[in-house]
Amino acid sequence: MSATFPAEEGERPGRIMSGEMAEQPEVLRRILDRGAPEIRAVAAEIAAKNPRFVLLTARGTSDNAALYAKYLLEIRLGLPCGLASMSTTTAYGAKPDLRDVLVITVSQSGGSPDLVASTRAAREAGAITLAVTNNPDSPLAAVSEHHIDILAGPEKALPATKTYTASLLSLYLFVEGLRGGDGAAAAILPELAEAILARKDEIKGLASRYRFAERMVITSRGYGYPTAKEAALKLMETSYIPALSYSGADLLHGPLAMVDNISPVIAVVTDGRGGEALQPVLDRLRGRGADLFVVGPKAQVEAASAGFVLPTAGVAEEVQPILEILPLQLLAYEVTIARGQDPDAPRALAKVTETR
Amino acid sequence: MSATFPAEEGERPGRIMSGEMAEQPEVLRRILDRGAPEIRAVAAEIAAKNPRFVLLTARGTSDNAALYAKYLLEIRLGLPCGLASMSTTTAYGAKPDLRDVLVITVSQSGGSPDLVASTRAAREAGAITLAVTNNPDSPLAAVSEHHIDILAGPEKALPATKTYTASLLSLYLFVEGLRGGDGAAAAILPELAEAILARKDEIKGLASRYRFAERMVITSRGYGYPTAKEAALKLMETSYIPALSYSGADLLHGPLAMVDNISPVIAVVTDGRGGEALQPVLDRLRGRGADLFVVGPKAQVEAASAGFVLPTAGVAEEVQPILEILPLQLLAYEVTIARGQDPDAPRALAKVTETR
Repeated sequence: MSATFPAEEGERPGRIMSGEMAEQPEVLRRILDRGAPEIRAVAAEIAAKNPRFVLLTARGTSDNAALYAKYLLEIRLGLPCGLASMSTTTAYGAKPDLRDVLVITVSQSGGSPDLVASTRAAREAGAITLAVTNNPDSPLAAVSEHHIDILAGPEKALPATKTYTASLLSLYLFVEGLRGGDGAAAAILPELAEAILARKDEIKGLASRYRFAERMVITSRGYGYPTAKEAALKLMETSYIPALSYSGADLLHGPLAMVDNISPVIAVVTDGRGGEALQPVLDRLRGRGADLFVVGPKAQVEAASAGFVLPTAGVAEEVQPILEILPLQLLAYEVTIARGQDPDAPRALAKVTETR
Repeated sequence: MSATFPAEEGERPGRIMSGEMAEQPEVLRRILDRGAPEIRAVAAEIAAKNPRFVLLTARGTSDNAALYAKYLLEIRLGLPCGLASMSTTTAYGAKPDLRDVLVITVSQSGGSPDLVASTRAAREAGAITLAVTNNPDSPLAAVSEHHIDILAGPEKALPATKTYTASLLSLYLFVEGLRGGDGAAAAILPELAEAILARKDEIKGLASRYRFAERMVITSRGYGYPTAKEAALKLMETSYIPALSYSGADLLHGPLAMVDNISPVIAVVTDGRGGEALQPVLDRLRGRGADLFVVGPKAQVEAASAGFVLPTAGVAEEVQPILEILPLQLLAYEVTIARGQDPDAPRALAKVTETR
């Protein structure tokens, strides 16, 4: 796989998404080398304002990146967070008091009118505003007091891949900056991402396993939960397989009834406390005869029906989501190719979604 | 339908859920008559403490009630809110600074250990704590500084129905109390709920429409969004049909690719700004040939393939969710009966889910 799109590949379905997935190690390296100093500077300016509460605003893939940031902010900084319900502002004209509140808006394009409107309203309501986008010239970057450029380069495939991992890493470095850390745990990521993406043949084999699946359940807990949500979104928007994602705890509160031995389950088992908290859920799933595919450390994969071993030894739990999603992006891609569809251009979708 | 369970009904599948759904008008009346003064008193005590942010903690059906409260608090009070990611405390030991933060924990049983632990931790971290439960003698009520009893009476069917609407009404009255309102908009609800539940034959006809569905998509926007999520949960835990719920805006960011003319879509169209904001989504769905079933006002139902007309004339938008869920509870029940299953006892579930 290559980051360029040679003309001879012509109209091969999925070549754009495939190229963008392959660019990810290079994008991660770019953020660490070129982006990190500016992210640190933005974090220092915001830290000086002492935010007491954080609201995250985003949609689709960026919403999953925002959820990852929520875990980081709550666990590593002890800052209470919420995900904004945008319609409260855009449809109902709510006028919240946002003094001491940091509002982070995450958007690949920075162009969706509702995000721009809600960020403008937040700034007027006294919030500290930060936009995290792939486009410093976007309207969203313009209305926000602070901006972080995720440096992913133009993304042309409809399913977002490299902008997701770029958002995660940028948000990780930002939160590290807020707490005065150096973000050293991220240094290993480009190399490990490369190693994972080189194993695409393993995933090709797995794709045949899910080609005829009529539904899937994806679960995780803690830091891996945003991965489960993003994997479900990726599978749905490319292959159209209805994929339901739940935190392990929520799965036990109802949807477990839906899981049986014909519904495949994918579990994202983060190596650390999230994975530990997921164990009772995995035991229940095994007890129900679920077909369990694990993305996680070797010992976890060996206890499941199948899986993809992640190189997590020595990798801090909080950066593992940046690796976990990679085999699942490849899986969505390969299942879609196996079903004879084009992952680059899912029906009905446009790259910049103009919700208002 | 009656609130009692006559012996001659014996083991008729679904009789417990059916009886509990039928109790709802009576429960709503009880809350308005007997519960309201105490809820107002709790609200006054909490208002005096001037919370600046709210965190809501819940799982399953109660999480959907919490989401409804989030809309109320943001729109009607301008209080920024977040839904807590419980594992940040229970698995990662996060120590957030919760001064000026109101933490509301919603739980039917008040017994789930993780909710008790996270509420205790919140109180130690300086939060104002409020438990909303159906059991004043529960451990959750005991660890919380304030408590609201939703007065629904014992709930025995595994799928929660009367405790959901009871939680919504109690939370509505609480938010009204915080803002010094009288909650008069709720007075009409018991009577309208009765009229809706009396139309169960309409729903029985509809159940045949979905009996063989392999998946469903449920969408809404604004106040109706928690209804969409709760309807999806109800359908999944009783009938096992994978039901995906999205806010209308999120649906356009990806999952729309999954909707085609064989996937039924249910739209919850609140009569007011939420319904207005949903119109472009409904247009897109119609444009894609989706089978669109609308729960909402007459004009909206007439523009769809089918629907259930809600009596929304003169009903404040913010209390409509308490009515919207009723036909969808009935639908989950009837589809499950039509599929030969027992809605009272979904496989794999226990009434008090002991997540940790």
